Amino acid sequence: MKLLEDRILRDGVVKGGNILKVDSFLNHQIDVRLYDEIGKELYRLFKDEPVTKVLTIESSGIGLAVAAAREFDVPALFAKKNRTKNIDGEVYSSAVESFTTGITYTIIVSKHFLGPQDHVLIVDDFLANGNALLGLIEIVEQSHAKLVGCGIAIEKGFQSGGKMIREKGIRVESLAIIDKMDENGIVFRPQ
Amino acid sequence: MKLLEDRILRDGVVKGGNILKVDSFLNHQIDVRLYDEIGKELYRLFKDEPVTKVLTIESSGIGLAVAAAREFDVPALFAKKNRTKNIDGEVYSSAVESFTTGITYTIIVSKHFLGPQDHVLIVDDFLANGNALLGLIEIVEQSHAKLVGCGIAIEKGFQSGGKMIREKGIRVESLAIIDKMDENGIVFRPQ
Repeated sequence: MKLLEDRILRDGVVKGGNILKVDSFLNHQIDVRLYDEIGKELYRLFKDEPVTKVLTIESSGIGLAVAAAREFDVPALFAKKNRTKNIDGEVYSSAVESFTTGITYTIIVSKHFLGPQDHVLIVDDFLANGNALLGLIEIVEQSHAKLVGCGIAIEKGFQSGGKMIREKGIRVESLAIIDKMDENGIVFRPQ
Repeated sequence: MKLLEDRILRDGVVKGGNILKVDSFLNHQIDVRLYDEIGKELYRLFKDEPVTKVLTIESSGIGLAVAAAREFDVPALFAKKNRTKNIDGEVYSSAVESFTTGITYTIIVSKHFLGPQDHVLIVDDFLANGNALLGLIEIVEQSHAKLVGCGIAIEKGFQSGGKMIREKGIRVESLAIIDKMDENGIVFRPQ
């Protein structure tokens, strides 16, 4: 998606430790027009699937999931990172280690909102080592819903997550795939 | 906002400990059409203010902030609950105790995205004891931005947060204010 690649080139900042800062438009401050366009592009890619739910994980995925769900006219649903008083005991759950913080946490989704009748599109802002996505995929499996695929804003193609998940036979569509990034610049995978 | 009140009456569940579960449409599963309408109503209420940023706190506020920011055509911005590797050292910060979990955490906003030139609308899904809102207000004060007011989806009018913040002279617009809730039902404040 050229709009996103151009924005990454303009406003993204490459840091040490394979960190790409896109917090001026994607995951701290949010460019709502860009989110709309990402939602439309995910709809274009997956519109032939009978999507009934768009699933993501808090926090950075929520706005993107809402943007995509608006296009499909279905509910968005976000996995929560801790058990709070507001969640019933009846949940699907999975353990996820965060690339950003290094912390392992449990993600949960209420069983009320996902079941065998659902066709699920998973959405997230980043795909790096794939841990968050694997956790969401496990939750979809627990619910016996059909996984339509994964729609990602930015994939770090030099990390193993995208390859690993595609090798499971799961469709992964990343709107920008970075094959290389360092102080000299960012190289996108041609799509 | 009658649409929201009706939805709370239809799908909200009152639990012990002053918990109102609205996770089927507001803060776990998300009704994206309702979010659009909430965004439009917040615009209607605050459209005479020169809003430049819509600020919220992760996670449940993010979708609502995006919905409102779309109407104002300005960026959304969400305070993060922990310091991660992706945030620079230069942040505004405030301590907040969560009503839902009882945990006290630090919320942070990058200084890059809020400053004296900004007119800020704060948005959140719930207003109860007001702790999250006070944290966001403190961050706006630190930035020397102008606080336009606070737009809330559901205020628990029987808790002290709304009164306390309005007494500071801050405009608070809550789309549904609950004066009483128990096993017999929910009573809204006439607006």
